Amino acid sequence: MPTRLTNFFLRTLREDPADAEVQSHRLLVRAGYIRRAAPGIFTWLPLGLRVKAKIERVIREEMTAAGAHEVHFPALLPREPYEASGRWTSYGDGIFRLQDRKGADYLLAPTHEEMFTLLVKDLYSSYKELPLTIYQIQDKYRDEARPRAGLLRGREFTMKDAYSFDVTDEGQDASYMAQRDAYERIFQRLGLEYVIVAADNGLMGGARSEEFLHPTPVGEDTFVRSAGGYAANVEAFTTVAPDPIPFDGLPAPVVLDSPNTPTITTLVDLANAEYPRPDGREWTAADTLKNVVLALTQVDGTREVVVVGIPGDREIEAKRVEVAFAPAEVEAATEADFAKHPGLVKGYIGPWSEGGAVLGAESTTGIRYFIDPRVVDGTEWITGANLDEKHVFGLVAGRDFTADGVVEAANVREGDPAPDGSGPVELARGMEIGHVFQLGRFFAETLGLKVLDENGKLATVTMGSYGIGVTRILAIIAELNNDDKGLVWPASVAPFDVHVVATGKDQAAFDAAERVVADLEAERYEVLYDDRPKLSPGVKFADAELIGVPKIVIAGRGVADGVVEVWDRRTGERTQVPIDGVVAALRG
Amino acid sequence: MPTRLTNFFLRTLREDPADAEVQSHRLLVRAGYIRRAAPGIFTWLPLGLRVKAKIERVIREEMTAAGAHEVHFPALLPREPYEASGRWTSYGDGIFRLQDRKGADYLLAPTHEEMFTLLVKDLYSSYKELPLTIYQIQDKYRDEARPRAGLLRGREFTMKDAYSFDVTDEGQDASYMAQRDAYERIFQRLGLEYVIVAADNGLMGGARSEEFLHPTPVGEDTFVRSAGGYAANVEAFTTVAPDPIPFDGLPAPVVLDSPNTPTITTLVDLANAEYPRPDGREWTAADTLKNVVLALTQVDGTREVVVVGIPGDREIEAKRVEVAFAPAEVEAATEADFAKHPGLVKGYIGPWSEGGAVLGAESTTGIRYFIDPRVVDGTEWITGANLDEKHVFGLVAGRDFTADGVVEAANVREGDPAPDGSGPVELARGMEIGHVFQLGRFFAETLGLKVLDENGKLATVTMGSYGIGVTRILAIIAELNNDDKGLVWPASVAPFDVHVVATGKDQAAFDAAERVVADLEAERYEVLYDDRPKLSPGVKFADAELIGVPKIVIAGRGVADGVVEVWDRRTGERTQVPIDGVVAALRG
Repeated sequence: MPTRLTNFFLRTLREDPADAEVQSHRLLVRAGYIRRAAPGIFTWLPLGLRVKAKIERVIREEMTAAGAHEVHFPALLPREPYEASGRWTSYGDGIFRLQDRKGADYLLAPTHEEMFTLLVKDLYSSYKELPLTIYQIQDKYRDEARPRAGLLRGREFTMKDAYSFDVTDEGQDASYMAQRDAYERIFQRLGLEYVIVAADNGLMGGARSEEFLHPTPVGEDTFVRSAGGYAANVEAFTTVAPDPIPFDGLPAPVVLDSPNTPTITTLVDLANAEYPRPDGREWTAADTLKNVVLALTQVDGTREVVVVGIPGDREIEAKRVEVAFAPAEVEAATEADFAKHPGLVKGYIGPWSEGGAVLGAESTTGIRYFIDPRVVDGTEWITGANLDEKHVFGLVAGRDFTADGVVEAANVREGDPAPDGSGPVELARGMEIGHVFQLGRFFAETLGLKVLDENGKLATVTMGSYGIGVTRILAIIAELNNDDKGLVWPASVAPFDVHVVATGKDQAAFDAAERVVADLEAERYEVLYDDRPKLSPGVKFADAELIGVPKIVIAGRGVADGVVEVWDRRTGERTQVPIDGVVAALRG
Repeated sequence: MPTRLTNFFLRTLREDPADAEVQSHRLLVRAGYIRRAAPGIFTWLPLGLRVKAKIERVIREEMTAAGAHEVHFPALLPREPYEASGRWTSYGDGIFRLQDRKGADYLLAPTHEEMFTLLVKDLYSSYKELPLTIYQIQDKYRDEARPRAGLLRGREFTMKDAYSFDVTDEGQDASYMAQRDAYERIFQRLGLEYVIVAADNGLMGGARSEEFLHPTPVGEDTFVRSAGGYAANVEAFTTVAPDPIPFDGLPAPVVLDSPNTPTITTLVDLANAEYPRPDGREWTAADTLKNVVLALTQVDGTREVVVVGIPGDREIEAKRVEVAFAPAEVEAATEADFAKHPGLVKGYIGPWSEGGAVLGAESTTGIRYFIDPRVVDGTEWITGANLDEKHVFGLVAGRDFTADGVVEAANVREGDPAPDGSGPVELARGMEIGHVFQLGRFFAETLGLKVLDENGKLATVTMGSYGIGVTRILAIIAELNNDDKGLVWPASVAPFDVHVVATGKDQAAFDAAERVVADLEAERYEVLYDDRPKLSPGVKFADAELIGVPKIVIAGRGVADGVVEVWDRRTGERTQVPIDGVVAALRG
């Protein structure tokens, strides 16, 4: 039975929704796929539900093929498991919390690691039962500070989340690869080009973490890749540190006047003008050590001021520094922070002053000092002397100052060497479409998931986590597949296979359209049939283009000559075919 | 690809769960279909998900056949639409409320009338677009005071809810019948016997309301039915009132001493002993008028004491009196209530005393008085005289007292006449499996859903509401289909079509089982294959019986003779068939 537009619950809109920031949102609303119910919360209309169901079907088929079993957890969950893992607190404002009529605490689950772990703990007891991978396709909730971009970052959204359970690390690797392979097949079937990039593996103690990114200039994530095959998101990129340099015989540091040089540019200009290098080469920003003052807020709420020293030709990159100091929250130090540390002379901060160490392990200030991996022992730097309008020249790392740690806080630049030796990297942009992730034993340890191993001893299970945002993927596909007329769905997820349009006032056109519809349905095509009697062809064509079914068949004037038109929505190509030749034409 | 028990995510349990009150809950947990996550909140395991998906498929197919279109609303919704309808408040403690990080109020929707109404208001504007029926299958939330009986009354549960939209009452009737017919087909396909009973239609101003009840002695609802085809739940049963009797010439009421007669029994005994009827017939409880004092709490919080007069041979029935006084909440009057109304002489209350009317329209007490439909004008009663240890005899309704209204508050009894004249009713018990319901114009009026009618004037839309509890239905099917060994699913919703069991240590049995599995899958049967190598036949059979797939095929010793056994789970019948004859035998 075809879906007939005369009674289908579909209304296309002429105007873009006022609150839509991105093309996918605008088109999905205008073409009648979704409606906004609240910020970041959407109602699914019949067309949208059909596309969502198709994406879910692809995911389910590949999960089954990968040996994963489907379960379904509640969205409304009690506090206790999340309290045990620490996430009831660590999620902060990011989750929805509520109480039931008895005052018991609940949350709307943003993710289900705890529940999966406890379920397996409940039911399994031996290594013989493993490996196991289970998954769900389920609605999740996050109280985003700024829900935006339509379905791309919502507050109620559908995820496929899978978890694997193994006793050994080798088993975990195999489970991980099975999911990773399934993801490759899923994205291939959905027509989504992807790059697998190394990702930060967070705090869970796991080993491997990779993101599937769709490369696109409008992507919200930056990643790096080399011609030799390296790929990582910027958080996971690791700097190739130079070898340390022996500092025997290097001259002692010299403190020099540097009036009005609170920035790297002013400092380099002054250095070249007043203190030229003996060998005649120009000083550059790379010769300077820039010291950035940050405030860390630890999970327990304590606030600490730290300083990070990076080469002056680089910037602190927010995402990298957040990962470097996680789980602490990082922000730029405020005036209040500076007021508490009068030893930090703004614009002229450095790890050393004429009295000795000012920052870091050997200092008396107690302010921790972290350095970029490039600041290896023996490197010489121009940097602040912690005196107003004075810098120190020839300050040697490892001799004149010692850091409390090395952090990946500086930005990655085109041409930086890939850590695997595969050559210089370039920067690219992409959208995250999936994440595979070795959780390791964090949740199993925390929640007590142990099984008897081969030797009859209790072994803590190791887990993997594998996520795809179903509604996000749908929005990304819409974002990537449209033109100025509307959506252009890939066949694998289109709400219908064919959109048949009868035009004009001649009953013969409608009769021909009915025949085409019947032929198509006999061959199991899913058909949307525009049988509306009184609309102009222009309105019908505009709707067809907006809705974006990949193949459109038009029964109009040609019917008198025994032909209809097959219109390829993507290429725009229109071909005349005999009324009874549509199935053959679509099969190509 | 068959589902193999060697790696399926399924663990059956030997023990009943401690918190299970009903058989469906016990068996669904023990057989590995669901797990409890919190009170009234469940996790779905793979077997349970399969059954749920089959029920949903039947519902979807029948909704599509009935011309309904599927949508999907969020579970997390803002307060505003529910504030507009008044239900944000009137739900009381029955819903989950929460706030987002900005302090905005949200709820977890218990039902979606408001959202459906607003969606249609958003998209439709003309009578030409109607009728429309749209539905969703979606997870809903109710903060039940006492979640119980497993899935039968949960706090997170899946519902199919449909809504119809029409301009005219005739259109609404047609939409209603289309859904009602679809419900009949759904329950037939699910193998659920049903009775359609008239139900209370609540406060929505709609006309027709019917429940689908599955008749079963263990049902939680009572309904009445006549041999002539009448059926109603007790809330909706309407009393056949006798004709009024002329009271010309009836003697005046007489107040008589009636010491120690605070109950109907003591009163009737005393009346027969002390004040026998002139005609010699015995007084019975039916000759007395029992006055029950109730406290109504209105939606605005005000509390009112009222009195209801019913024949002394009947009781107040809680469900009926609740409906009679809805939306007020009804409870028995407390000592505090009596203290405020010293005119009510406990045990001897009546509408009249020697000074005149005590209760009702003509009284000076201001206490409203309601009567049972049987208390028609001209009927004579023995009732309290509002004096300690005194009753009045021969008090005539309509002459000596006038009520403020007639209410259906008394219980229904076997033998009461059906209101449609189809004979005496019997009482029966059932479980609610569906509800179809004419909402009328309440929500459309409240939320401003109007469309242009044929004359170009704005007309308020009339709506219908049609609900099936998907997870509840699943539990009811389990409740009705089990024996002392476990579940016995009807074929239409069984998690698999066939459960193939290989037994023994002989590889030939496993080879034969594989062949049977392959034959079955070639014919599109869904197969659960117990290929576990080291378990005893007894354990495997016990699991098969517990899980409840309707057809079981056993490959064991008989394989040496070329045969396997086909076991009908419901009848217990076992038949030997050739290894390659299983498909033919199942088609039987």
